[in-house]
Amino acid sequence: MSPKIAIIGFGAFGQLAARHLRKVAEVCICDPSIRSNDLKQVDLPKAARCATVILAVPLSRLEEVLHQIAPHLRPGALVIDTCSVKIRPARLMLDILPAHVDLLATHPLFGPQSAADGVSGHRIVWCPLRGRGHLRAAVRARRAGLRIIQATPEQHDRDMAVVQGLTHLIAQSLSRLGPMPERMATSSFGHLLRSVGMVHADSPELLRTILTENPFAADVRARFLQAASEIAA
Amino acid sequence: MSPKIAIIGFGAFGQLAARHLRKVAEVCICDPSIRSNDLKQVDLPKAARCATVILAVPLSRLEEVLHQIAPHLRPGALVIDTCSVKIRPARLMLDILPAHVDLLATHPLFGPQSAADGVSGHRIVWCPLRGRGHLRAAVRARRAGLRIIQATPEQHDRDMAVVQGLTHLIAQSLSRLGPMPERMATSSFGHLLRSVGMVHADSPELLRTILTENPFAADVRARFLQAASEIAA
Repeated sequence: MSPKIAIIGFGAFGQLAARHLRKVAEVCICDPSIRSNDLKQVDLPKAARCATVILAVPLSRLEEVLHQIAPHLRPGALVIDTCSVKIRPARLMLDILPAHVDLLATHPLFGPQSAADGVSGHRIVWCPLRGRGHLRAAVRARRAGLRIIQATPEQHDRDMAVVQGLTHLIAQSLSRLGPMPERMATSSFGHLLRSVGMVHADSPELLRTILTENPFAADVRARFLQAASEIAA
Repeated sequence: MSPKIAIIGFGAFGQLAARHLRKVAEVCICDPSIRSNDLKQVDLPKAARCATVILAVPLSRLEEVLHQIAPHLRPGALVIDTCSVKIRPARLMLDILPAHVDLLATHPLFGPQSAADGVSGHRIVWCPLRGRGHLRAAVRARRAGLRIIQATPEQHDRDMAVVQGLTHLIAQSLSRLGPMPERMATSSFGHLLRSVGMVHADSPELLRTILTENPFAADVRARFLQAASEIAA
């Protein structure tokens, strides 16, 4: 029997997903750059033939991977992406993947740091794009304790331009100022530092996705900078 | 017997101080604009004759109040300010108050919100300026559970240009963007929102003090904005 869930891309999020999904399903992974001792590794065509295909690759590689898996996807399979923006991956999946597969765009609002103690109680943005396969995925996600937030890709990107766009802009800007004075930190500054600490380890690739691939992010940044400049003046 | 501790200025911090100090000492307050039913109210000359005089007035009023209390202060009294910057109040107290009083500049790193459950465990920056009266004040502060952070006024203002200067700049800037999207908030954005929430209720007067009366704040703001502009570009 072939594994039921394939995770393509075994970076920070792929590893987190594998750790949780293997408890409830047969999981295989596909990532030529990484060797895992305890998970079944398969090539891309084999991964594409699974019932559920989770794409955990950077957005910059998504289009290429979609073209590679498209010929191998089986009718009724569910393809799920996990990128930090949603309009562009949704468009790519709808354009590139065959009509006989179901499509679900997601954005898990947690990562290895925030979900270190488990995914239960964490949230995932859920944008069903095609077919009904997302329904059985939702049952699984809820069973794992995830809270599903239904949204369109546009609603997601509008909100995330603020949520992630500003968090990362502020965190990166603070990081560039050098060591922070922790001895006299107030409670409110402590929250700021915790926020910085949580996104500090995010990859440059993720930062680039958040800052440049969200069509609403540049405007939100400009408005934040305008407000800050007025206050600072 | 005259009250031992006078609190001049009964705003947010004066009220917080009174609530805690009255448990351990005889406290009177002086603030013509506010009426308190359960604390003894006195005029400025009477307040100035107490053994310990805590100044909880905005920095903009400090110079005037120092001139008003100076003639009435008793030898050996301890005068404590609580402003959010330290170089300027320290200079004003040293210049205006008579040599026969001890001087302590402080900055309590907590407020009505963060110390809603009590002051124990919270920190206070401690800049002894003259005399040994600060030693008995330190015993009292430690007995209340406060953690004392010794610093010079300059060390304080340098650190606080980052701690408070940036927290308030970021919080005010975010506030101006309108309602924040909470439905999709990540953990790190949640910390950012908590930080904003904690300083949102601070008075415009306090914001002005933090942004304009700290001699290092403008430079820190400029560096933050420069970094943010580079990232946003």
